Amino acid sequence: MASNTFGEVFKITSFGESHGPAIGLVIDGCPSGIDVSEQDFQSALEMRGGGSSPFVTARKEADTPRILSGVFGGKTTGAPIALVFDNGDTKSEHYEPIKDTLRPGHANFTYMEKYGVFDWRGGGRSSARETVCRVAAGVIADKILKAQGIDILSYLKKAEGKGMEESPCITEEGLEPWKKRRAESAVFCPEPLGDALIKQAVKQAVEEGDSIGGVVETIVYPLPPGLGEPVYQKVEARLAFAMLSIPASKGFEIGAGFMAASMRGSRHNDSFILKNDRIETETNNAGGTLGGITTGMPLVFRVAFKPTSSIKKEMKTVTLDARETVMKYPEGSRHDPCVAIRAVAVVEAMTKIVLADLLLMSRSSRI
Amino acid sequence: MASNTFGEVFKITSFGESHGPAIGLVIDGCPSGIDVSEQDFQSALEMRGGGSSPFVTARKEADTPRILSGVFGGKTTGAPIALVFDNGDTKSEHYEPIKDTLRPGHANFTYMEKYGVFDWRGGGRSSARETVCRVAAGVIADKILKAQGIDILSYLKKAEGKGMEESPCITEEGLEPWKKRRAESAVFCPEPLGDALIKQAVKQAVEEGDSIGGVVETIVYPLPPGLGEPVYQKVEARLAFAMLSIPASKGFEIGAGFMAASMRGSRHNDSFILKNDRIETETNNAGGTLGGITTGMPLVFRVAFKPTSSIKKEMKTVTLDARETVMKYPEGSRHDPCVAIRAVAVVEAMTKIVLADLLLMSRSSRI
Amino acid sequence: MASNTFGEVFKITSFGESHGPAIGLVIDGCPSGIDVSEQDFQSALEMRGGGSSPFVTARKEADTPRILSGVFGGKTTGAPIALVFDNGDTKSEHYEPIKDTLRPGHANFTYMEKYGVFDWRGGGRSSARETVCRVAAGVIADKILKAQGIDILSYLKKAEGKGMEESPCITEEGLEPWKKRRAESAVFCPEPLGDALIKQAVKQAVEEGDSIGGVVETIVYPLPPGLGEPVYQKVEARLAFAMLSIPASKGFEIGAGFMAASMRGSRHNDSFILKNDRIETETNNAGGTLGGITTGMPLVFRVAFKPTSSIKKEMKTVTLDARETVMKYPEGSRHDPCVAIRAVAVVEAMTKIVLADLLLMSRSSRI
Amino acid sequence: MASNTFGEVFKITSFGESHGPAIGLVIDGCPSGIDVSEQDFQSALEMRGGGSSPFVTARKEADTPRILSGVFGGKTTGAPIALVFDNGDTKSEHYEPIKDTLRPGHANFTYMEKYGVFDWRGGGRSSARETVCRVAAGVIADKILKAQGIDILSYLKKAEGKGMEESPCITEEGLEPWKKRRAESAVFCPEPLGDALIKQAVKQAVEEGDSIGGVVETIVYPLPPGLGEPVYQKVEARLAFAMLSIPASKGFEIGAGFMAASMRGSRHNDSFILKNDRIETETNNAGGTLGGITTGMPLVFRVAFKPTSSIKKEMKTVTLDARETVMKYPEGSRHDPCVAIRAVAVVEAMTKIVLADLLLMSRSSRI
Repeated sequence: MASNTFGEVFKITSFGESHGPAIGLVIDGCPSGIDVSEQDFQSALEMRGGGSSPFVTARKEADTPRILSGVFGGKTTGAPIALVFDNGDTKSEHYEPIKDTLRPGHANFTYMEKYGVFDWRGGGRSSARETVCRVAAGVIADKILKAQGIDILSYLKKAEGKGMEESPCITEEGLEPWKKRRAESAVFCPEPLGDALIKQAVKQAVEEGDSIGGVVETIVYPLPPGLGEPVYQKVEARLAFAMLSIPASKGFEIGAGFMAASMRGSRHNDSFILKNDRIETETNNAGGTLGGITTGMPLVFRVAFKPTSSIKKEMKTVTLDARETVMKYPEGSRHDPCVAIRAVAVVEAMTKIVLADLLLMSRSSRI
Repeated sequence: MASNTFGEVFKITSFGESHGPAIGLVIDGCPSGIDVSEQDFQSALEMRGGGSSPFVTARKEADTPRILSGVFGGKTTGAPIALVFDNGDTKSEHYEPIKDTLRPGHANFTYMEKYGVFDWRGGGRSSARETVCRVAAGVIADKILKAQGIDILSYLKKAEGKGMEESPCITEEGLEPWKKRRAESAVFCPEPLGDALIKQAVKQAVEEGDSIGGVVETIVYPLPPGLGEPVYQKVEARLAFAMLSIPASKGFEIGAGFMAASMRGSRHNDSFILKNDRIETETNNAGGTLGGITTGMPLVFRVAFKPTSSIKKEMKTVTLDARETVMKYPEGSRHDPCVAIRAVAVVEAMTKIVLADLLLMSRSSRI
Repeated sequence: MASNTFGEVFKITSFGESHGPAIGLVIDGCPSGIDVSEQDFQSALEMRGGGSSPFVTARKEADTPRILSGVFGGKTTGAPIALVFDNGDTKSEHYEPIKDTLRPGHANFTYMEKYGVFDWRGGGRSSARETVCRVAAGVIADKILKAQGIDILSYLKKAEGKGMEESPCITEEGLEPWKKRRAESAVFCPEPLGDALIKQAVKQAVEEGDSIGGVVETIVYPLPPGLGEPVYQKVEARLAFAMLSIPASKGFEIGAGFMAASMRGSRHNDSFILKNDRIETETNNAGGTLGGITTGMPLVFRVAFKPTSSIKKEMKTVTLDARETVMKYPEGSRHDPCVAIRAVAVVEAMTKIVLADLLLMSRSSRI
Repeated sequence: MASNTFGEVFKITSFGESHGPAIGLVIDGCPSGIDVSEQDFQSALEMRGGGSSPFVTARKEADTPRILSGVFGGKTTGAPIALVFDNGDTKSEHYEPIKDTLRPGHANFTYMEKYGVFDWRGGGRSSARETVCRVAAGVIADKILKAQGIDILSYLKKAEGKGMEESPCITEEGLEPWKKRRAESAVFCPEPLGDALIKQAVKQAVEEGDSIGGVVETIVYPLPPGLGEPVYQKVEARLAFAMLSIPASKGFEIGAGFMAASMRGSRHNDSFILKNDRIETETNNAGGTLGGITTGMPLVFRVAFKPTSSIKKEMKTVTLDARETVMKYPEGSRHDPCVAIRAVAVVEAMTKIVLADLLLMSRSSRI
């Protein structure tokens, strides 16, 4: 059953393994008339790449896409857009010494069970390398949203439980000030105190040869009401679907989320009010949706990421030929201490993909 | 854009409004040769109905499906199965006094924004009445899973933050003992202390004319490895998609979930071990999946539900003609104090639907 | 694999067997704001029913739909529209004497091979009874097209090779005059001579206890350019898909069709010309599309129908327990002498469904 | 609305324009464990390329695919297979002189109407260059079918109305002898007389600067019963959908096809008989399906292709700025005199894609 496609109208199909010749994607259903150049992808891909800070892996990926189709004279034509990234800096030899060993937290075991194939070179198809495709697709999706004035910001809220306590307060300047602050943070946390706490947590984990988890929060604002398709394509359902498809993600919550489960209705209910002659809600515990359709209030949700599975410490495990053993990644292996940092770019991209898709879907809701 | 269909191979399409003549669904892609009778639906539908306890609404729904197609001589034929429930006990007149008022926490506002239509009779298409269809589909899905020995249990873990502290411990008897305990709990909590704490919380909320949220947990075991389709139809992605499509759900987490975001890798990683010559993991922080494919360990996930939006207390809101007002549900209105109780049956049904679908999908993964 | 759904945006899902309690469909993705009442279906359903002429079966079907959902206050709401037809006049007992016999030209054999089930009561799911759903969906689709000024006409062009020689000539009155003429023909042939020839052929077949095939032609005009989605959802590909899904259909051709295969390019090519400052083509061998997208010229295509498989004559066949035998339909069995007559309504309906779907799809082709 | 994907389980997504840097496709849903190498594609691609006979265009395409993903150690892994063909021999300058002119029979006009873009370099996305992707996908699909013993043969039956009168007679050697004969024909007609008549027709058309149409026939045998999904994914419906998506195709018919429309039921009905204890039909007017499901008899269908639109003769047309004019392709332009010749490989490939897809679908029809 085919499963490498995401989206209903704005559809992405990705392909490629971490240690194959290339990785790439096809975007189908993109409207014509959108300006696209290869430079447009740079900043989002750098963000996913982790920049050059000590808080992310030293592994560099050749993250420049080649546009193979769908763009003519600098504009989309309505034809499918194919983007290909050559896999430059792949070092399969790092995996040679452990090629017969199941790596804890990784998917070699389940892929072998499912497909009868054991691709020991990095994660193969299950590698987070695939997320480069999502980030590239997010760049195109963003152009569709921008044309409607929709703005999106993801950021690292917490790592190992430390970081920001409050969500950003949105003024009339929108998300712009927070984007700037995020740009100044090597861990993509837009609040100075949160930034400092997270950096400290990451450093300590690195020193101890360990890794940490984190929470990425996203705000979408402005956002028109009416996006989301009842009853099975609710905006939060599409978002949860997208977010739990990101490697290492373990949870999704919208608005008050799991907190709502501990609340009373009288406190959780968002009262409708009039503000500048527009219907809004006084609070936003719902997180921007009612009945699965956007209300026009800021869309706010969080995604939990587990700590990186690849760590320097020794781990108990089993070999392919069913012997218990202890494994250690070879010297020189390069891993992220906190995947949630680089996941910020991926969450933001998937949000854009989901919303662009719902926006195009909504065009057929009325006669 | 059509959105009332869920599933890729085992597909359900639901229809109907809470106050229309009937509600129903079509199940397409169900294999032939499965025993089905109208009686099979009773226990799951009663569970969704809430039984006859004081912990749920007094509103009774005529939850007996008529099978219109797809079954011949007591067996499925491979043709689509249509099930219809007549809407018996609908009291639109309860909504008359507030027909021009936006009800906080409800979807009338967003449906009106999206479709330009204001159906004031209960929730219309957004009503949780629709979940009766999901529960019915779950009954059929369960038969597909049973044939493979797969067993599923959902239960109310907490309400307003109180309830079970630990997840059920699974012995060699599997989920059976916990099913029995759940059957004895009017709030579907299989642990006596949890049951008592939850009942107390519900009672207090009822007395105060208020409502409370809750968390539903699900365990699937036994479960074969190899279900889940990389990369966008990961088992947790499909589950999150399904769960966030349930009315009032606000969050989803699998395994350690949001806790994982506060953990170190050395603690979170599940070591592979040998047990009875089978590869298992020592712990199960992953919650039964790696790389989006089931490992064969118990699948464990939680869904957060907000407190019921309809409460007896007065609430601030706005009328259709944009005047701020205060609303109160008419005397005699019947609402659940805690939607999470009846949501247990819906979560369990959606889990079955997702897994039956993935099971049928997995048949084409190898030549 | 689910297959009882047709369409991408405007989606129909049908269910029901010829001898079950009811047959019906769900239309999902229909825009809100369209006027619908149960009376709207009458004329199309009567046309499919064959009217009360001697040229069609005497079997009467209770073709009055009940609208179960999706319409509120006489207008579509954007929710799925469920329509149910109770199966009134089913006489399973006619099939009793031949219940162990494979009926030539029918699908009992292949259904048994595929599903392991032998539903001997009429055609079961494979019965042309299912087409009542298509005709009903066509009525809704037509409303979407009408709002854009698109008009459609199907008619019986030939039966047993006799009938109309030329396609209707379209004047500035559009298809209206031909609709009137069709309404006057009991065999739905809008040309007097064709009508007479066809009637004669049908009568003779009836007298001889035999059946005949036929060709249904369709014209769509006016029709805006730009419908059809390259490269796999070309307008002619969608139409061919839809038409070959109709029971008893054996072929599809557009424009010059199979004739084009015998032509030279210099004769087949349609020259572009200017007409009233609009770009048109001088001839229309293409049949209204280029590259799978409508040109704005009339869309013209034909569908071939085989002769009815159920005839009064004796036929050689085989029993379920693999004995060669000779079968004869019981006295009183009621069959159409020429299924192509009643197929006119079905072809017209499927055309409307395809075009409404492509029209809604086209809304996302440009930014 | 995305439309560059074909298939439900075995899904192909193609991308690329005739004059862009590359063209390619992603095959998703291919089972793991299938042997694949780059050499496997050669013979099918050469056949599509037309060999080096004088009966096809002199334009050479660099038809060697690069496998970017989905294959490890010579076998498919279950991950998506990406194949890319660099566009070597593109001569956009041939199109410069006519860049402002609508070319009769081509899709520039409709793409411009739909997308607002005029890509004057060859056909852009609408070019038959795209069919190289279909042929490559057919090679993989064939491996899935081969594993079940299914064999497929397409051939040019007629051009300009001349060629084979009878369909090949299948002996116990199956299609093998006819494959050999096809290999000896530069026009892919497996019967010597037909081959000679077609060659003569092509030569004469070339001499007169003209082009001709043709009919491609396909036989599938052996073929198991049970493929095809009622009611909307009938095997003939899927085939018709696939065939009418091929550039220049104008018609599809199965079994007796349009001839059936002129027949009596008593003659058209295929009697069931016993042959070697297997149920077969005495004749095969149905063409191998009943109720949209394969019977096990040979699947036989035909596709009509129009004459090549690009001819050497002068043609009337219109310019982009709406002036009537006369166009002539520049000296040195290279076009096929009969697209149906090279279409043989494309029809065969699409047949394989459809059947592999239906075969994988059929795995979930029974419990």
